Amino acid sequence: MKKAIGVFDSGVGGLTVTRELIAQLPHEDIVYFGDTARVPYGIKSKETVIRFTIENILFLLKQDVKLICVACNTASSCALPVLKKNFRVPVVGVISPGAREAVYATRNKRIGVIGTKGTIKNRTYETEIKQLDPKVKITAVACPLFVPFAEEGWLTGSVVEEVARTYLAPLRAAKVDTVILGCTHYPLLKPVIRKVLGKEVTLVDSAKQVAIEVKKILAHEGLLNKRGSSTHRFYVSDNPEWFSGLAERFLGRPVRNTKKVNSV
Amino acid sequence: MKKAIGVFDSGVGGLTVTRELIAQLPHEDIVYFGDTARVPYGIKSKETVIRFTIENILFLLKQDVKLICVACNTASSCALPVLKKNFRVPVVGVISPGAREAVYATRNKRIGVIGTKGTIKNRTYETEIKQLDPKVKITAVACPLFVPFAEEGWLTGSVVEEVARTYLAPLRAAKVDTVILGCTHYPLLKPVIRKVLGKEVTLVDSAKQVAIEVKKILAHEGLLNKRGSSTHRFYVSDNPEWFSGLAERFLGRPVRNTKKVNSV
Repeated sequence: MKKAIGVFDSGVGGLTVTRELIAQLPHEDIVYFGDTARVPYGIKSKETVIRFTIENILFLLKQDVKLICVACNTASSCALPVLKKNFRVPVVGVISPGAREAVYATRNKRIGVIGTKGTIKNRTYETEIKQLDPKVKITAVACPLFVPFAEEGWLTGSVVEEVARTYLAPLRAAKVDTVILGCTHYPLLKPVIRKVLGKEVTLVDSAKQVAIEVKKILAHEGLLNKRGSSTHRFYVSDNPEWFSGLAERFLGRPVRNTKKVNSV
Repeated sequence: MKKAIGVFDSGVGGLTVTRELIAQLPHEDIVYFGDTARVPYGIKSKETVIRFTIENILFLLKQDVKLICVACNTASSCALPVLKKNFRVPVVGVISPGAREAVYATRNKRIGVIGTKGTIKNRTYETEIKQLDPKVKITAVACPLFVPFAEEGWLTGSVVEEVARTYLAPLRAAKVDTVILGCTHYPLLKPVIRKVLGKEVTLVDSAKQVAIEVKKILAHEGLLNKRGSSTHRFYVSDNPEWFSGLAERFLGRPVRNTKKVNSV
């Protein structure tokens, strides 16, 4: 039997990464898990996020996946070293691909990072970027209201624009030419972020780079499926209707048959 | 040994109720539990909220409490009948006291209810109010961004005002003269809600009525402490720093020594 790629996120955000995986790896089966009973992760402690992440991975391993994609910046920034150390299955996070892309894109060596409180507090992007290029100057800010805005569909208009202006002021002051969208919800807010920061600033959404990395690892391990049809299964720990209702906005296509599991 | 009153909420919101309990019952010990590892409850399913609520009550019972106050509208509206049926300890929720107060306050028999998605979906306020006065016309709307605004401290200004205008438009159209603040976070947004609805609309914040009910039950059971000093203990399932940082805004006084427990 053909093994699937396992993807998880605290909720719906990881679907922006899944969308790119489906586009670049059309012959791969995907099992997605959204931990909607405990969403959001962005305001929770590192210790708790690590515990939740390990539980999610154990669920995906039961589905016999061949690779796990941690499609959540908070979980990646808190737990990736622990996961790589403890699990045999290849694990791909969303931080390194985004950091690499940003270092490649910047001209003036000033990079901005936006994310949840958890992601910003852990400074994982800063560590990754400094390893790639110690000369880069980083300005990182948490944008805690962006996730509720994305989930509630407040994507344009004066309200979200004023909040974005407030949050992004330090990035404008620092004259960054590249900004990492360090949360899988943020691609939905790209238009307003672009409006506030200006067209000349490059917005790095790590989904594309994550899919490239997944493809590279699967090819290297001889696990890549190059032909045939594929299936995509969606599991959540709570509220499948809420998930399905939001899914289309994040995945770009409707999701049917989301299944609730009591694994966590 | 003197037994304490147990109070719980998904996070910090229940502190607005605790504030009133302390004011009205100055000689009672209080044990507060905030389920910050799984906060918020407002977007989660009834089944999951019931499970979390029972786990929280089991933790409080281990602290040997004499009464439990469910200081969370979502948990009260999802779980109260199950709790009253299954536990011996007296359980006080926040729905009935608010409903009674609103029915008492309205002159034109048009009451508005605002709350989380979970609370509004369950229609518990409507059921309670209709039992008290079947002639009352109820308009209920979910205000999902109010909780993040309250927690992030966006309590005044054009952003929250525009969101409030959008959410509260159906209440204005229905010409309600009384509005139940059906979420323990909302008292923090009273000024902006009052600005949008006008001074002539009565805002019902159930905290005062909840404290009166708790006092009545304790007196009836012969469990009321009428003298002596009291202690207030605060437990959370995650992130004591986050909780302590927000607590003063909700409780009106600083909270020290919040303790993290791994009960859930």
